[in-house]
Amino acid sequence: PGVPRARGCAGSREVVPTCERYAVRRLPFARLADGDVAFFERLMPGRVITGEEEVKPFNVDWLKSVRGCSQLVLKPQTTAEVSRILRYCHERNLAVNPQGGNTGLVGGSVPVFDEIILSTALMNQIISFDKVSGILVCQAGCVLERLSEYLEEQGFIMPLDLGAKGSCHIGGNVATNAGGLRLLRYGSLRGTVLGLEVVLADGSALDCLTSLRKDNTGYDLKQLFIGSEGTLGVITAVSILCPQKPKAVNVAFLGCQSFAKVLETFTTCRAMLGEILSAYEFMDEKCMKLVETHLKLSSPVADSPFYVLIETSGSNSTHDEEKLNKFLERAMASALVTDGTVATDEKKIKASHLRERITEALTHEGYVYKYDISLPVGKLYDLVTDMRARLGQSAKNVVGYGHLGDGNLHLNITAESYSHSLLDAIEPFVYEWTARCSGSISAEHGLGFKKRHFIQYSKPRQAVLLMQQFKAMLDPKGILNPYKTLPSAP
Amino acid sequence: PGVPRARGCAGSREVVPTCERYAVRRLPFARLADGDVAFFERLMPGRVITGEEEVKPFNVDWLKSVRGCSQLVLKPQTTAEVSRILRYCHERNLAVNPQGGNTGLVGGSVPVFDEIILSTALMNQIISFDKVSGILVCQAGCVLERLSEYLEEQGFIMPLDLGAKGSCHIGGNVATNAGGLRLLRYGSLRGTVLGLEVVLADGSALDCLTSLRKDNTGYDLKQLFIGSEGTLGVITAVSILCPQKPKAVNVAFLGCQSFAKVLETFTTCRAMLGEILSAYEFMDEKCMKLVETHLKLSSPVADSPFYVLIETSGSNSTHDEEKLNKFLERAMASALVTDGTVATDEKKIKASHLRERITEALTHEGYVYKYDISLPVGKLYDLVTDMRARLGQSAKNVVGYGHLGDGNLHLNITAESYSHSLLDAIEPFVYEWTARCSGSISAEHGLGFKKRHFIQYSKPRQAVLLMQQFKAMLDPKGILNPYKTLPSAP
Repeated sequence: PGVPRARGCAGSREVVPTCERYAVRRLPFARLADGDVAFFERLMPGRVITGEEEVKPFNVDWLKSVRGCSQLVLKPQTTAEVSRILRYCHERNLAVNPQGGNTGLVGGSVPVFDEIILSTALMNQIISFDKVSGILVCQAGCVLERLSEYLEEQGFIMPLDLGAKGSCHIGGNVATNAGGLRLLRYGSLRGTVLGLEVVLADGSALDCLTSLRKDNTGYDLKQLFIGSEGTLGVITAVSILCPQKPKAVNVAFLGCQSFAKVLETFTTCRAMLGEILSAYEFMDEKCMKLVETHLKLSSPVADSPFYVLIETSGSNSTHDEEKLNKFLERAMASALVTDGTVATDEKKIKASHLRERITEALTHEGYVYKYDISLPVGKLYDLVTDMRARLGQSAKNVVGYGHLGDGNLHLNITAESYSHSLLDAIEPFVYEWTARCSGSISAEHGLGFKKRHFIQYSKPRQAVLLMQQFKAMLDPKGILNPYKTLPSAP
Repeated sequence: PGVPRARGCAGSREVVPTCERYAVRRLPFARLADGDVAFFERLMPGRVITGEEEVKPFNVDWLKSVRGCSQLVLKPQTTAEVSRILRYCHERNLAVNPQGGNTGLVGGSVPVFDEIILSTALMNQIISFDKVSGILVCQAGCVLERLSEYLEEQGFIMPLDLGAKGSCHIGGNVATNAGGLRLLRYGSLRGTVLGLEVVLADGSALDCLTSLRKDNTGYDLKQLFIGSEGTLGVITAVSILCPQKPKAVNVAFLGCQSFAKVLETFTTCRAMLGEILSAYEFMDEKCMKLVETHLKLSSPVADSPFYVLIETSGSNSTHDEEKLNKFLERAMASALVTDGTVATDEKKIKASHLRERITEALTHEGYVYKYDISLPVGKLYDLVTDMRARLGQSAKNVVGYGHLGDGNLHLNITAESYSHSLLDAIEPFVYEWTARCSGSISAEHGLGFKKRHFIQYSKPRQAVLLMQQFKAMLDPKGILNPYKTLPSAP
């Protein structure tokens, strides 16, 4: 009997339960009892899911790479309900897996064993939007794309955009400190998130849901929850600063003959496009092949070893086009770029967003080993070349793409199916390589379940110990998203 | 015998010791003994200051509003020295007051009693600057203006700029989460600071000094130290993302007939200037009078109830000027603005920075009651009007200015000298007024010594309790900057 397909995911094979594939030991949490289910059914009738088939999609991640065995999904609608759920679980010592759109890529969004799944799917109300300040306040379960559509009608946009926007929840975005395509221009969620409402492990609510651009009254508690992957508290509402919708958006899709030219094109375009540059993405030719093969999309420019996607957003279309054209003339004249196309109307722009669908194309290949690395830009592609040489025929494909403007490489290795020996050839090699360049082993995906034991490649021991102290202080029983983010305390 | 003048501060009167003016009780820290001084002199010969006259300037704040009675200033040069100092003080239970440029406005930068002053003045080395990424790494004691000058030579700028730049240290800026004039454009330090090195209360060093645009490996520990005002650790080095130096900078100084017009001008200019808008500051006519009277500067535009300073920064001077001119035509034609001047060359721009010197002009008035409030922009000036009506003749001047684009009002009340009764007329009225509008009682100045007991007007009890838990965890003996930021634990 096949596990139901996660949205947009192509594979149909059975997923091996995480506790079988990896040597993890269940922590001594209480086991779910009939009385517990009865309690939740009284608390939120009709929003308690227990049937095996109904629970299954919540147990498997989007990549179909990890699988938990939870028997219970809860769908609260209000912060008060989340509070009551956690107070109960805390008293009963029941472990909880907070889940947003379940689009995470490091196994952080599904249970490892039988954790109760707390889904934010029904916490999808917009609370307020102020057109003067551009500040949006909403519940954690709002889908990113829905928020984008809502804001666009009012002349604003969300400060983040990513491939999973059709499913991911804003609460999950904040809990994982999601990056994405617009970070280069609008900065990270650490700057744009102005306030959070969080329910702590013991069920107490922490209201830091302010809507102020500036507030220096004490420590900025919300920052601890941004990027904590549901291990310190459950985010129930978000206040976020949204930029005005740019009047003009232009996209250029270019072909480059080498990675050195990709870098030189970046330096040139940053200087010439300045404040209107809103994305600088790159992908190698193998990525393009996968998108063509599996998604039947075609490249708008001739065959090249590398492709670059440049986006500009500005307030004056004449000025923006003039800047972009000057840059393109320079890039062509100095042979940085060998072929290119420019799109200004919105349809074409969407069509050229090949870049966004690479993740999806990769899932059609079989099993995907995913690495999300921060590196000094100059060294970014060397890791792909080195890995390709190292793995030879043992991998199906080794591809590189990512947010070059942020120094963020997505290195992906595909194979027909998961194998321990291929994993051993990749890890810890990839982490050691990254650590030698003072890079980060997770630029934007987080650590979740799959990367938590590699944190020491990017953080000193003292920092990890301090994180474990914070965890112990905020969640002394360890019930919130156990087996995630941090290695177990010593 | 007069206290030596703090830099740039005009008054010459004696400052009342803080412990006399306010009812504060000294906590049971150890008292400095001869053996302690001997230890420090062995550790860092020639960089231990003990003479009463030499220590005095470090005991008094820039505003001359608070005064400690420390007998010892230490000037470490390295992180290792800071580590050894704190390890010793922790063992001996000696309290420590970390001090940068001593330009803080809430009494956070000087001791309250006899805390040992740990000055970062000699930690002033630039460690590295990478021209590709724009990432600067430097010691905490670098003066902001020196960093700006260094970067400008390389075609970059600091992401923050403030009036105190000639004295303030970058470590102090980060410790207090300083805002300033460029926040509107480049965002807060929570986004631009990429890494920190911090020495904790027990002397252990925490190395989070990464130079990566993105890093999602575990909790973002550095955020806790940003804005913690030296109460959780001593920042010893900073890694910060610096924007490229804009090729074109323009400044417009405008007169408006009402605050409603100031607001409408803001909305119009935000829409028309878009991505090149880098500052939108306002001041009332009383501010202008003070700058004219005390600093002999003159207004470049005719008498108006309100003045607005707009700065644009961009990559193309022709485009920028065209945008600015179009906006000015619109603003004049619709009578939003009655008089104005535009400066493009750097000299004129500097001359028109009247705005930056208001704080200094105010100190010439006598005693200044300073409030730094975040409010919804629409209500920003109502607080000034209400306060003026409330105080009547009991205050010399009630003035308002600030970073309108960020919803940040600087409300200042002057009197010949400090008086309890005037303070009672202002507080808690000002805080209650702010809390009713869901504002913040400290937008960018922090809480320091003077505002710490008012935190509850902007933060719920649960949040303050959590902050106290963090403090207790990181500094169990409470030796770091005691009597600051948080009310004493229950």
